[in-house]
Amino acid sequence: MNYDKIFDQAIERLHAEGRYRVFIDILRNKGAFPNARCFAGHNGPKPITVWCSNDYLAMGQHPKVIAAMEEALHNVGAGSGGTRNIGGNTHYHIELERELADLHGKDGALLFTSGYVSNDATLSTLAKILPGCIIFSDELNHASMIAGIRNSGCDKQVWRHNDVAHLEELLAAADPSVPKLIAFESVYSMDGDVAPIHEICDLADKYNALTYIDEVHAVGMYGPRGGGITDRDEAAHRITIIEGTLGKAFGVMGGYIAADNKIIDVIRSYAPGFIFTTSLSPVLVAGVLASVKHLKASSAERDGQQAAAATLKALFADAGLPVMPSTTHIVPLMVGDPVKAKKISDILLAEYGVYVQPINFPTVPRGTERLRFTPGPSHSEEMMRELTAALVEIWERLDMELLEAA
Amino acid sequence: MNYDKIFDQAIERLHAEGRYRVFIDILRNKGAFPNARCFAGHNGPKPITVWCSNDYLAMGQHPKVIAAMEEALHNVGAGSGGTRNIGGNTHYHIELERELADLHGKDGALLFTSGYVSNDATLSTLAKILPGCIIFSDELNHASMIAGIRNSGCDKQVWRHNDVAHLEELLAAADPSVPKLIAFESVYSMDGDVAPIHEICDLADKYNALTYIDEVHAVGMYGPRGGGITDRDEAAHRITIIEGTLGKAFGVMGGYIAADNKIIDVIRSYAPGFIFTTSLSPVLVAGVLASVKHLKASSAERDGQQAAAATLKALFADAGLPVMPSTTHIVPLMVGDPVKAKKISDILLAEYGVYVQPINFPTVPRGTERLRFTPGPSHSEEMMRELTAALVEIWERLDMELLEAA
Repeated sequence: MNYDKIFDQAIERLHAEGRYRVFIDILRNKGAFPNARCFAGHNGPKPITVWCSNDYLAMGQHPKVIAAMEEALHNVGAGSGGTRNIGGNTHYHIELERELADLHGKDGALLFTSGYVSNDATLSTLAKILPGCIIFSDELNHASMIAGIRNSGCDKQVWRHNDVAHLEELLAAADPSVPKLIAFESVYSMDGDVAPIHEICDLADKYNALTYIDEVHAVGMYGPRGGGITDRDEAAHRITIIEGTLGKAFGVMGGYIAADNKIIDVIRSYAPGFIFTTSLSPVLVAGVLASVKHLKASSAERDGQQAAAATLKALFADAGLPVMPSTTHIVPLMVGDPVKAKKISDILLAEYGVYVQPINFPTVPRGTERLRFTPGPSHSEEMMRELTAALVEIWERLDMELLEAA
Repeated sequence: MNYDKIFDQAIERLHAEGRYRVFIDILRNKGAFPNARCFAGHNGPKPITVWCSNDYLAMGQHPKVIAAMEEALHNVGAGSGGTRNIGGNTHYHIELERELADLHGKDGALLFTSGYVSNDATLSTLAKILPGCIIFSDELNHASMIAGIRNSGCDKQVWRHNDVAHLEELLAAADPSVPKLIAFESVYSMDGDVAPIHEICDLADKYNALTYIDEVHAVGMYGPRGGGITDRDEAAHRITIIEGTLGKAFGVMGGYIAADNKIIDVIRSYAPGFIFTTSLSPVLVAGVLASVKHLKASSAERDGQQAAAATLKALFADAGLPVMPSTTHIVPLMVGDPVKAKKISDILLAEYGVYVQPINFPTVPRGTERLRFTPGPSHSEEMMRELTAALVEIWERLDMELLEAA
């Protein structure tokens, strides 16, 4: 048994496919997002503009968030010191859970250390509690949902992306007496399209299924109070469990679910991924609390983001760049090849001070490699024009096809 | 299908067994650990002393840690804004990984959002990369290791706790040509005993197995530089993968592994729980960096903790309280009944302002319910004498047996 050889081969496969990942070493500049500093080996220590952050609304530098975190740091210290059950349950956690429950119009909410863990822990636990449960999963669901479903050991049926006719076919064919859970996302983050939530809920009603929606790329950004697409589409009351993140539009770190008290109590009491882990640092929780409260009351950030996304999509289309048909704030450019996607990204960083990460398998299916831009309220129109010109130059340099201008 | 009924039954089972968990709502007082404030419903808004924190060395309030976090907060903002691959790789992360690699004398290290995730992600990925791998798991391994092993889908063989003869029996019976991994902890946190690391490594050498050690209850606290029991026992170079936490003795939040570069690269490239999640907030990472550097150079906190643990064990034994035979900083008192353990804890909180959480199933096996005290350098001898007197009074009040004084 030669362990080294097996590990070498595993890494070699990535190089051969052109998808070995090199992490870019950066520091963002608070007070000047989307600007950042890049460290040695990428473009020298030159300034860069970040175009691929999931801190979508720049709340990670909002004065209210920073002030709340600083206050908590001096009030209670750095970490929580324990699990939620053993010493790590602070008043901040309780307040934030109330705030998130209110955001989604639910009885309760439950914090996790990340969105990944909230999906994995909740889905795997729920399906174990419900004997014989079948989970109906959209084929483009996030890796963390797939992990939770797989780890539950339950029966999984995959429906074609956003295809409610296919979903109904599967529901109709299943034993009416077994528990069912429909799991999907609101905004699919690599394509930027949105699920037909009400139609899915109609099917859930018809076939007596529970519903689980991942809103991580929507909370803070959609709906009058930032409750996500379920807030915008007035569908939150029809969904059994809404899952969200504190690390994207809310600008900090962590994840959560919101649901009725009974379900919250079950997950709280049975999910190993919730029970056996140090709770979120109260410093983070205090920051999120300020962020959620601010975005409940302010739509300026959401409006700024939507305007920026519309502008960038129009500039890309006018220049003939292959922008994908996103209906949200996400602006993906199709490349279709992992080596080219990385090459474009490398040139942008080295020559233009533009940082956008190539998106390769396993984040997207092979053959659909892309660049994914996330313009926000802090990206100016001038930055967007410069970015568009840079991309056109690179597209021509690499002999890639530009489309007819839209 | 009545979902509510199933959820009700799940909660009812917990009440019936006396192990339904109520989280105590507290805020610790920075600058005055182990003192804290308790919120409504527990003991009124009275001050309490925390005896069950895993912030073992009170590094969560160390001035260097607080200052580093405050500086990062103002330098780069609240969150990282992305996964390690997409925008969330900051210079802080890279520096901390170097520091942790050095702490354990390894080539490299890899950060995760928690210790739970580091165990789950690493073990499940490693066993998938090694075809036909068998994991040999100590029967008292933590829930997160059990999750990782189960989620890998590999063959698992459980050896009796710390029983190297049994481990050898299992190793000898296995096919010599398949990959093998021995997974265990250094300090078992609910009993306070320690694994025979060198003997386990001897068996790993003899049977060509990899070794994986969970040092979460030891890093920062043992060894001349706080590298854990493998540091104290000069065994780190014999272990394939050392796993640790940033949320206990280091006082903040997060988890990591340290290993040779090849293994780090494999886990970094293949583990969904590492790839598909927002990276640790740079604010946390900056705090940990200060904490690890401090504890590498200072043994005062470790010495203080060991002295406090020795004092408390002696006081308990002298008073006839059933202190378990821990050889570490953990001081468990056996109760053996979930309802009594909770009752004692409730009286301590309500009448004595002492907060120690009852430890029930599934954290410990049924019938071994206990109170678990973690005295640290900030607990004074006076506090310990008051605690001992309170426990003796409650033991007598509840007609529980006191042993002969040691």
